[in-house]
Amino acid sequence: MKTYLDCLPCMLQQALRTGRIATEDERQIKQILDTVGTMIKDIPMDRPPTETGNIIYRIIREITGVADPYKDIKSANIREVQVMYPDLKRMVNNSRNRLLTAIRLAIAGNVIDFGVNKEFNIPQSVQQIIDQDFAILNLELFRDQLNRAGSILYLGDNAGESVFDKLLIEELGKPVTYVVRDGPIINDVTMADAVDSGIHQVAEIISSGSPAPATVLSLCNDQFLKRFDNADMVISKGLGNYESLSGVNRPIFFLLKAKCHLIANHIGVRENDIVLKALNIGVSINDRNRSINKYRNQEK
Amino acid sequence: MKTYLDCLPCMLQQALRTGRIATEDERQIKQILDTVGTMIKDIPMDRPPTETGNIIYRIIREITGVADPYKDIKSANIREVQVMYPDLKRMVNNSRNRLLTAIRLAIAGNVIDFGVNKEFNIPQSVQQIIDQDFAILNLELFRDQLNRAGSILYLGDNAGESVFDKLLIEELGKPVTYVVRDGPIINDVTMADAVDSGIHQVAEIISSGSPAPATVLSLCNDQFLKRFDNADMVISKGLGNYESLSGVNRPIFFLLKAKCHLIANHIGVRENDIVLKALNIGVSINDRNRSINKYRNQEK
Repeated sequence: MKTYLDCLPCMLQQALRTGRIATEDERQIKQILDTVGTMIKDIPMDRPPTETGNIIYRIIREITGVADPYKDIKSANIREVQVMYPDLKRMVNNSRNRLLTAIRLAIAGNVIDFGVNKEFNIPQSVQQIIDQDFAILNLELFRDQLNRAGSILYLGDNAGESVFDKLLIEELGKPVTYVVRDGPIINDVTMADAVDSGIHQVAEIISSGSPAPATVLSLCNDQFLKRFDNADMVISKGLGNYESLSGVNRPIFFLLKAKCHLIANHIGVRENDIVLKALNIGVSINDRNRSINKYRNQEK
Repeated sequence: MKTYLDCLPCMLQQALRTGRIATEDERQIKQILDTVGTMIKDIPMDRPPTETGNIIYRIIREITGVADPYKDIKSANIREVQVMYPDLKRMVNNSRNRLLTAIRLAIAGNVIDFGVNKEFNIPQSVQQIIDQDFAILNLELFRDQLNRAGSILYLGDNAGESVFDKLLIEELGKPVTYVVRDGPIINDVTMADAVDSGIHQVAEIISSGSPAPATVLSLCNDQFLKRFDNADMVISKGLGNYESLSGVNRPIFFLLKAKCHLIANHIGVRENDIVLKALNIGVSINDRNRSINKYRNQEK
């Protein structure tokens, strides 16, 4: 997905919000906004906004000296969902369609996102999404691929949301590799956050190598790209991963809440709709491998 | 009122919105955002945001070649309220407190504001504000000054809102001078818009000389400043005028809906509260004249 003009004020808003979380020094925050403002003219509009997000968060780190502004917030969100976990598990156990309920809950967890300009309340979100109709629900395609898959590559999104992901992984019934960001960026899930969330109890955890707030293939390491090329089934969580991977020519299942109206438009749904969308399901392994290699050569 | 860090992303958002109204050429709109982004580092944070607003709209005019992007929107808003006018007049006629009802309606008109990031619906706003409690209502002070005033200086805000102003002016029962911006800026009321709204039937109309989206004293002409210095009573409509005049040492009555959370905080109310606030009522004419002269010398 390309960068839209609407993304530019939103990026400045994100820089302000994260600046305020990193420091109370108004001069440093002003310096962040000055720097991001000046770089607007150089933002590559044909590339996904998550790539620019990576640069903005590097600027915030450099100016404030704070490597991980969301550290405490991430821990608090993980704790909050862990306390809810027994109730969430009961919801899955008591449901007629365990898999669909676990998918709904995994999407409910996607509200825990400091990359968008929205406030959230986790218990309210769970209640709302349990009752919400899907705008797109490719469940049969999902179940079909799941049944045939030897193993699954699961692209994580945010810390806290990761505890919801654990619930879904437990329902998949197949070996899962859970993919995290290479380092702290916004409240995205890192290796440490995934372990805090108990993901290591149900899945192998690897880093994509991407320092951006998304699985940006041109920034990923070779080990991940090989896994991504050859995975039987890829599940992608959240907006950042959608922005970065919606143009990639391989089968992917996107699970997300469309919190941004631009992404909602791109998917063809309304803002705040919930989505389980299968993309490129017909693309064969040979075609997709060639596509990804091409992509890497172009972008690296 | 100074410029807050939160104003900076909001300014970029306003530039995008107005750019889109002025042109469909995405490259021109991008150029506007590039230019505004680069100027963020030079924005004087100790000055009201309306002064920067003036510069941003000049940039939009220069890049797009469109002098008055909101021309058609302003005309449509004026027409819409004129169609409502007989009903609004009946609301005043049928009310127990004509003055208070006319004040409420004048504030309802303050939703017609393209300077803030809010959508509005004029009839809904009228209905809502008629039933809404005032967060601040200095009505007795207002009535007291009104009774003692020989004439009134009424600082207009937006086109369309100006038709609501006409209703209030009719209830004041004193000679009124209605003050407009010196030229088109956002959807602010100009001489032509005021005449379109029928203000000339009930008041003298003068320009403040300010090209900014507010009565910025350092940008006003001498004729207006003399009137402002010596006016018995000043009524100021809207957010822009509040931003520019809340720090000026003379009695002013501010009528507004606090659509921006920063301005709401500054006033000491909540976002979307409605306000009739008297400021500096005890300041004598000698003190205030000295203050304004000082202000002009400093800022010009």
